[in-house]
Amino acid sequence: MQRRPFLATLGATAAALTTGARAQEPAGKKLGWALVGLGSLSTNQIAPALAKTKHCKLSAIVTGTPAKAEAWKKQHGIPDSHVYNYETFDRIADNPDVDVIYIVLPNSMHEEYVIRAAKAGKHVFCEKPMANSAEECRRMIAAVKAAGKQLGIGYRCQFEPHHRECIRLAREKVFGPLKFLEAGFGFQIGDPTQWRLRKNLAGGGALMDVGIYALQACRYLTGEEPVEIVAQETKTDPVKFAEVDETITWSMKFPSGVAASLMTTYGFNGKNFFSATCQRGRFGLDPAFNYDGIKGWTSRPDVKIQFPAVDHFQAEMDAFADAILNNKPFTPGGEEGLRDLLAIEAIYRSIREGKAVKVEAP
Amino acid sequence: MQRRPFLATLGATAAALTTGARAQEPAGKKLGWALVGLGSLSTNQIAPALAKTKHCKLSAIVTGTPAKAEAWKKQHGIPDSHVYNYETFDRIADNPDVDVIYIVLPNSMHEEYVIRAAKAGKHVFCEKPMANSAEECRRMIAAVKAAGKQLGIGYRCQFEPHHRECIRLAREKVFGPLKFLEAGFGFQIGDPTQWRLRKNLAGGGALMDVGIYALQACRYLTGEEPVEIVAQETKTDPVKFAEVDETITWSMKFPSGVAASLMTTYGFNGKNFFSATCQRGRFGLDPAFNYDGIKGWTSRPDVKIQFPAVDHFQAEMDAFADAILNNKPFTPGGEEGLRDLLAIEAIYRSIREGKAVKVEAP
Repeated sequence: MQRRPFLATLGATAAALTTGARAQEPAGKKLGWALVGLGSLSTNQIAPALAKTKHCKLSAIVTGTPAKAEAWKKQHGIPDSHVYNYETFDRIADNPDVDVIYIVLPNSMHEEYVIRAAKAGKHVFCEKPMANSAEECRRMIAAVKAAGKQLGIGYRCQFEPHHRECIRLAREKVFGPLKFLEAGFGFQIGDPTQWRLRKNLAGGGALMDVGIYALQACRYLTGEEPVEIVAQETKTDPVKFAEVDETITWSMKFPSGVAASLMTTYGFNGKNFFSATCQRGRFGLDPAFNYDGIKGWTSRPDVKIQFPAVDHFQAEMDAFADAILNNKPFTPGGEEGLRDLLAIEAIYRSIREGKAVKVEAP
Repeated sequence: MQRRPFLATLGATAAALTTGARAQEPAGKKLGWALVGLGSLSTNQIAPALAKTKHCKLSAIVTGTPAKAEAWKKQHGIPDSHVYNYETFDRIADNPDVDVIYIVLPNSMHEEYVIRAAKAGKHVFCEKPMANSAEECRRMIAAVKAAGKQLGIGYRCQFEPHHRECIRLAREKVFGPLKFLEAGFGFQIGDPTQWRLRKNLAGGGALMDVGIYALQACRYLTGEEPVEIVAQETKTDPVKFAEVDETITWSMKFPSGVAASLMTTYGFNGKNFFSATCQRGRFGLDPAFNYDGIKGWTSRPDVKIQFPAVDHFQAEMDAFADAILNNKPFTPGGEEGLRDLLAIEAIYRSIREGKAVKVEAP
């Protein structure tokens, strides 16, 4: 049984974020970020978060929609020279104001744009899921490594204090050794024409989009990798979900003997949680994965999980900037993304083959 | 999709229990019960419950331990003529004070004693799990049917008002159609020498003993039978659990499209619940399966699940007596027990073969 030094790494990064003293860094230096893909996540979450960061600023945009370019230029004061489309994207290599390129495109485009960003000599931050397959993840990791740059994956919950406290409770065995995990995330998806329901764009359905949060939670709570998975798919609307998964439940077991039950769905609201059962008590979050309103609970009246709200995107971008400015390895990076895709591929394989499967090695 | 007329049957039985008027029944008639097996369940739950019933009384005992016979005779005023051991058991046929024989033996002995009780011409009540296999259940059902008697299985939760209210909330779609179920029951088992850890006596481990409650809950909440199951076993103590299962997680799907995630364990405390996610809200019980202290919750402040405590054993025995006295079919009977065993066999088969399996037809 091998525990990755997750908490230590994360702890260091976060400590640096909250203390003011960061000697190696040029005073006041802010990294310039280019946003690739100006959909609702960029508009409603990432751009406002960038404005709140300590160490980042919005420097450039990449979009295929001229009207969006105009609106963003005006709203964020971006000069023409810092606006790219998907044809001109590679010229971003010559823009010294861009330090980091943040890929916020549909999943199927992550590989191409992460690799092009790396080839442009920039650090790369990429939304989750990292890609549509483990093979794509491996190529992305190799490309960023070859460029000598950092790769970060947008696992925002790892920077959220309720989640971080749960990781501490699990790893420090505050309720005794962890025995069992439950996690689930789903919602009733609306517009049947959206890209999330197209396999060639999204790579999969609920599992790729939101189930990954439940999977991540089990991985960061244990600090271990799942070894064996059995999964079951349920489809109630074969028209809407003709291409992608609607509801999946799965079991995973971890090397230390922790068992886990997970679920994800695009079919209904109500599941947005994780729960940890330990030798001497229980704790969890419900809701767990929203941008705000996260609520913690424990089985002990004297142990509370309660923190002020933070902007998850602000926190993750500042942490990435901190790693770059101080030349420290960043977690969660490509390895984290790859590990999730390996588990996701095992889940789909288990469903397809109707059997228990081992998770592939990275 | 076929819904069994469970609620209607149960409703009728319970209504009869709570109203005083029961015309077909001889006024004041109490059925005489014989308890077979005087372990802690008989001592601490069933005998005290019998004393509280309206329509039942303790008439006879069957035990292989002379010291227990003496103690029970004294405490309950049972004459020598109404005390049997496992050799003399069949003479109970000649005892007109015994109407019902309640089998409270280790699981592996259920079949033999249910069949012998039926051959003695008595109604039979049998603890859960009904038997160690579906095949045993079928023979038990046939024997009681051939004797023209009633067979009841000790699924006490079906007579508990919190559970009954949850069945109503699910079936009447108070929160909209049911979408997803989670259920689990487990505990950290103590004494490593007990019969529950011996496969030849218990038939299995946590799943047979307590997982069956979680399984039952999903069946009575949906009113449907699971069609496909995938299961995973986790074993952290291969010595203690050399013969039987320690922790099992499994997924089931139901004909209407309801998905379910379940678990059971002998390895740790803390899971004792079910939770129903519906189109427009959630509800559940936690703890759910204890003899008392059951707590309900819902996602709507105006819908409470809150009832005075009842003695589950008293309720189920009076319901069985009511069915006999009024010549009505009793639910949960042998079919319920058989259905659970078919699902349990599918769970074990899925683990053994490492694949998704269909649940066999009764």
